[in-house]
Amino acid sequence: MVAVMPLADNMTQQTSSKISGTSKWPVRVAVIGVGLLGGSVAKAIRRRLPEVQLVAWARSHQKKEELSKEGTFDEVFDDIQEVAADCDVAVVASPVTHIANLVSEIGRHSPPDCLVTDVGSTKLSIVESIEKDSLVRSRFVASHPIAGDEKTGIEHAQSDLFDQKWIILTPGSHVAPKWLEKARSFWSLTGGIVQEMSPKAHDTHLAAISHVPHLVSSLVAKIAPAEARTLAGSGWRDITRVAAGDPGMWTAICQENRGAISAELNRVRQELEQLQRILDTGDDAKLQAWLTEAQNIKKHQTTS
Amino acid sequence: MVAVMPLADNMTQQTSSKISGTSKWPVRVAVIGVGLLGGSVAKAIRRRLPEVQLVAWARSHQKKEELSKEGTFDEVFDDIQEVAADCDVAVVASPVTHIANLVSEIGRHSPPDCLVTDVGSTKLSIVESIEKDSLVRSRFVASHPIAGDEKTGIEHAQSDLFDQKWIILTPGSHVAPKWLEKARSFWSLTGGIVQEMSPKAHDTHLAAISHVPHLVSSLVAKIAPAEARTLAGSGWRDITRVAAGDPGMWTAICQENRGAISAELNRVRQELEQLQRILDTGDDAKLQAWLTEAQNIKKHQTTS
Repeated sequence: MVAVMPLADNMTQQTSSKISGTSKWPVRVAVIGVGLLGGSVAKAIRRRLPEVQLVAWARSHQKKEELSKEGTFDEVFDDIQEVAADCDVAVVASPVTHIANLVSEIGRHSPPDCLVTDVGSTKLSIVESIEKDSLVRSRFVASHPIAGDEKTGIEHAQSDLFDQKWIILTPGSHVAPKWLEKARSFWSLTGGIVQEMSPKAHDTHLAAISHVPHLVSSLVAKIAPAEARTLAGSGWRDITRVAAGDPGMWTAICQENRGAISAELNRVRQELEQLQRILDTGDDAKLQAWLTEAQNIKKHQTTS
Repeated sequence: MVAVMPLADNMTQQTSSKISGTSKWPVRVAVIGVGLLGGSVAKAIRRRLPEVQLVAWARSHQKKEELSKEGTFDEVFDDIQEVAADCDVAVVASPVTHIANLVSEIGRHSPPDCLVTDVGSTKLSIVESIEKDSLVRSRFVASHPIAGDEKTGIEHAQSDLFDQKWIILTPGSHVAPKWLEKARSFWSLTGGIVQEMSPKAHDTHLAAISHVPHLVSSLVAKIAPAEARTLAGSGWRDITRVAAGDPGMWTAICQENRGAISAELNRVRQELEQLQRILDTGDDAKLQAWLTEAQNIKKHQTTS
């Protein structure tokens, strides 16, 4: 795994200068599956490249009408063959369980110099699936921009959603350096900070830092009785904020990353059992040490 | 248990009109143990009653010097007998494990018309302890303003910390209506919305909505490996925000409310085991229903 460096001001400056050197590419960008992330990718690219052609694929005629009216995209298609034609970059931004199929389909219909990438929160099963597709595996650079919100839909999309956020690239073994470089250039245009990592390391880390914390947040929201919820303060509200997220999207993430999530939930249970033992035996020095360890992690995280 | 009503604009107005009717009382307010909450009580009272005399008790000579320099209080004492003399209201704002002893001591040294109250996050053991103290039990109105922050110390105190926040009063059985009314008037001056509840109901609800969520937040912060933490997004940051709180304060809360917290941690473990079963058996319809239940709770909470 390539080490992930902390955010720094000079990284933003590097990103900006790289962008100015590549301002003629891409000419045409397709977004397949437009919600908060797909919409924000489009807006972020338009912010840096006002002349870019933005096209979208909508999965139904009704969605196509809505998206055409919304105005972010120059053209909206409900035919994937049409959206893939002539584009320089295709970004698959559907729920994770649909990404691999859509990447393969885009691979069949897009020009051979078209970079294909995605925004999925899980990576291993997508990359393993595309490794078997000789038509697209060399130019599909799997990606995960670590940005988002409990809100969904293009109506919440923002051009600055990725500014100084991590964009993790997890290329498969068939991706040549040229395509990786293209993916780095493209994602830098969004304002994010690009890093690389293996798909497996990504999924293990994200289970611990995102997927399982999300499930725990939902759990905390679920267990408080209704009469207690009227007393919620800012702590409860923050802990449970992400529990308002889209259940379908999070079910899909659990499907795709079941193994790592299950292993991490086991660690949660073990830690919980340890906490219960400490609390029930009345070992308050140990309890304070347990809490202090968590506090130190937060203190370190805030300053790094 | 008296039902807790949702916040409403007209409640703020009622609070304001009540304040203007009682503007000559209290003349002198003592704060015993000055941190974020004690400091904020003082600043909130001063905001409404610019002429009020604010006095504080500091537990050491050094603390006394610091607090005198800080400027919120007119006088600072390290002798509890001196601070208690002549005050109309005494607010005990120490860590919860010290509150009952300090309330009894204030009871011994304060005038018989002095209201004694506190800000502790746990109530049952404090109230039960004071029930045995015939000198102060009729005029001690236990209280919990549901406001706070992971930051501590008077340097973070704010005059608007309690605005439109719940102030829960949990009077013991010896408190006469007159004293309860005084407590209502006093706490309304802070800008908060006063409600009543039994000490036991308070502690059970707070275990579910605050104490256990806090422990779970610390647990989530602790289990993520360091290499995963560099990938933390806004979800993890919010879920673990309160884990930065003072370990000593939270250990004291666990000591005081051990039974309710232990029972609630059992519910967390049962819910976690159910989630693991759903995940491991691959029942994704059930998983989505589980997540949807949490989402609905958050949606309802946001709009109420």
